[in-house]
Amino acid sequence: MAVLAGVFLDREAACGLPALAGDANRGPKSFSAQNPFRSRAPVSATLDVLTIGNAIVDVIARADEAFLAAQGMPKGSMTLIDEAKAEAIYAAMGAGTEISGGSAANTAVGAATLGARTAFIGKVREDKLGQSFAHDIRAAKVAYATPLASDGPTTARCLILVTPDGERTMNTYLGAAQNLTTADLDAELVKGAAITYLEGYLWDPPPAKEAFLAAAGIAHGAGREVALTLSDSFCVDRYRAEFLELMRKNVVDLVFCNEAELKSLYETADVDSALIQLRRDVASAVVTRSERGALFVAKDAVVTAPAYPVDRVVDTTGAGDLFAAGFLAGRTRGLDPATSLRLGALSASEVISHVGARPERNLLDLARETGLLA
Amino acid sequence: MAVLAGVFLDREAACGLPALAGDANRGPKSFSAQNPFRSRAPVSATLDVLTIGNAIVDVIARADEAFLAAQGMPKGSMTLIDEAKAEAIYAAMGAGTEISGGSAANTAVGAATLGARTAFIGKVREDKLGQSFAHDIRAAKVAYATPLASDGPTTARCLILVTPDGERTMNTYLGAAQNLTTADLDAELVKGAAITYLEGYLWDPPPAKEAFLAAAGIAHGAGREVALTLSDSFCVDRYRAEFLELMRKNVVDLVFCNEAELKSLYETADVDSALIQLRRDVASAVVTRSERGALFVAKDAVVTAPAYPVDRVVDTTGAGDLFAAGFLAGRTRGLDPATSLRLGALSASEVISHVGARPERNLLDLARETGLLA
Repeated sequence: MAVLAGVFLDREAACGLPALAGDANRGPKSFSAQNPFRSRAPVSATLDVLTIGNAIVDVIARADEAFLAAQGMPKGSMTLIDEAKAEAIYAAMGAGTEISGGSAANTAVGAATLGARTAFIGKVREDKLGQSFAHDIRAAKVAYATPLASDGPTTARCLILVTPDGERTMNTYLGAAQNLTTADLDAELVKGAAITYLEGYLWDPPPAKEAFLAAAGIAHGAGREVALTLSDSFCVDRYRAEFLELMRKNVVDLVFCNEAELKSLYETADVDSALIQLRRDVASAVVTRSERGALFVAKDAVVTAPAYPVDRVVDTTGAGDLFAAGFLAGRTRGLDPATSLRLGALSASEVISHVGARPERNLLDLARETGLLA
Repeated sequence: MAVLAGVFLDREAACGLPALAGDANRGPKSFSAQNPFRSRAPVSATLDVLTIGNAIVDVIARADEAFLAAQGMPKGSMTLIDEAKAEAIYAAMGAGTEISGGSAANTAVGAATLGARTAFIGKVREDKLGQSFAHDIRAAKVAYATPLASDGPTTARCLILVTPDGERTMNTYLGAAQNLTTADLDAELVKGAAITYLEGYLWDPPPAKEAFLAAAGIAHGAGREVALTLSDSFCVDRYRAEFLELMRKNVVDLVFCNEAELKSLYETADVDSALIQLRRDVASAVVTRSERGALFVAKDAVVTAPAYPVDRVVDTTGAGDLFAAGFLAGRTRGLDPATSLRLGALSASEVISHVGARPERNLLDLARETGLLA
């Protein structure tokens, strides 16, 4: 498949959003020129992408719509649950496949398999699931050195019900993940990372919120970029005002969201008006639109890219995480936004073709096969 | 897809093995008429299939041929390892997907999803993996009541390396599974099961061998059938004489094997001569031949069935287990051997299309979609 090199102006661009075609393929150096933290030249990054998030093991089972209804689970959502509720759902649900997960951790793994130098910070306990989590992320060549907790809550798990249409409904017991604190931040790691990527879900456990803000401060102090994924429309609903403040105060430079999250952020059903507000509020953003592709927006640019076709959507878990992985890997390689979007779309297409939120194929090989990377 | 209703005489049949076309579709009642334990009419079965085997959780990771070579693993084999070796391999291997497994347990799950009334007997410890195993098999509607061990070795695990061609190479730490004893046998369960299915792997842990023989005795005492899978060519190599004795002394009535196991059993590269010996040694057998289909042989019959086409072989783990599941489910439904073989082939085709040895789809729905079952 040929590299999608051009700039595509779509209906968003046509409705009042000026797109500077000459600028869209400039590559990362100038792409966030509006960002005050980009004003001095940073020392060379020792890491491409550092992600920080809730460290979670997924337990994935198939379920039908009736099961979701009987359990009162809003389809497609992520619901926070306590350990007792986790036990009750587990007892009721079908046979589970256990695969390491966690949104930002999935993104780190995806970026690593695309050749990016990556690290992850997140908390597990030193129990069976925690050991699996640590093994798996390290096996994917992601640097992971957050100390495992020797006591306290057990390792976080996410009970994921996948309906026949491939859609996932998640129930998360945060457990040990909620004890991530500023003390777990490795400042040198943050300073050395070209992009520090934070998940909106970190807003759920209060101490993690502080770690999030501290990491953003350290990254900006070192002249690096800070990215945020809005994670989930329900998450946006919980923290709308805070997320908007992070954007408006330039605590984050690059936002990842899907259309549902975007609509939730601006409490509107109108994507066009939400996009106009998004471009005012943040230096740059990637908006994913499932099978309709994705777009990158900055103050002066709108770039779109189509989705990759998928034979059968098996499980959408991790689609957004892997899209971000592809985009970030492309961006830190110095690729233009259009190609980075395509790399995101390709990565997402791989992960929705099988069960689990971590890629089964080497994404670098896949990108080379499709001609996206040389 | 149409039901394969006819009898196909293949080259085995043509080379000295008489096939009685009129007999091949007789259904189970007369199919093991040669077996002395079928001489009196059994009381109605309360269970279709009881399987007994090593209760194992699989940890599945992708690996390349170079990894197998570096680790000294014979590709396609199952090697028994101790816990220290399991830790060493785990540390070296890639990120793992954990899914309940165990050969006979997979067969029970497969038969259950085809609508058979099934139960499983096998030993785990009451640890995280053991609890997952118990949850998963019960979630698949397989009756499972073997007491979980409260101490002793940890739950068995099988480290499975899947190469790009989909072939699996297994390393099994038997742990708690090796403590299955005659005391764990529920005699009423065995008496009530139309077919008791035992895995050759049970010959590895010595106490389980006794439980195996006790179960066969109870089953035959109640006028039931006893089936054995030869499990693995290396397993056959370890226990050739004993397996042959089980067959020749009518301790087992129905043998499942693939061509590699068959050749190993008779220490020959010539499948035809091995088949002649197989028909002399056991009342009936199912021989699977990967993409070349499978055949059912009895003293007076040879029936063949083609394989189901598969778009992409992702992971062959469980192919034999699920073939057996389909055949047993068909047989206990009273279907003829040809249709039972087809049900086996269909079940195997589903399980090799994804990672893991348990079906992801409802096999009954699948069999109905293909027209194999009404």
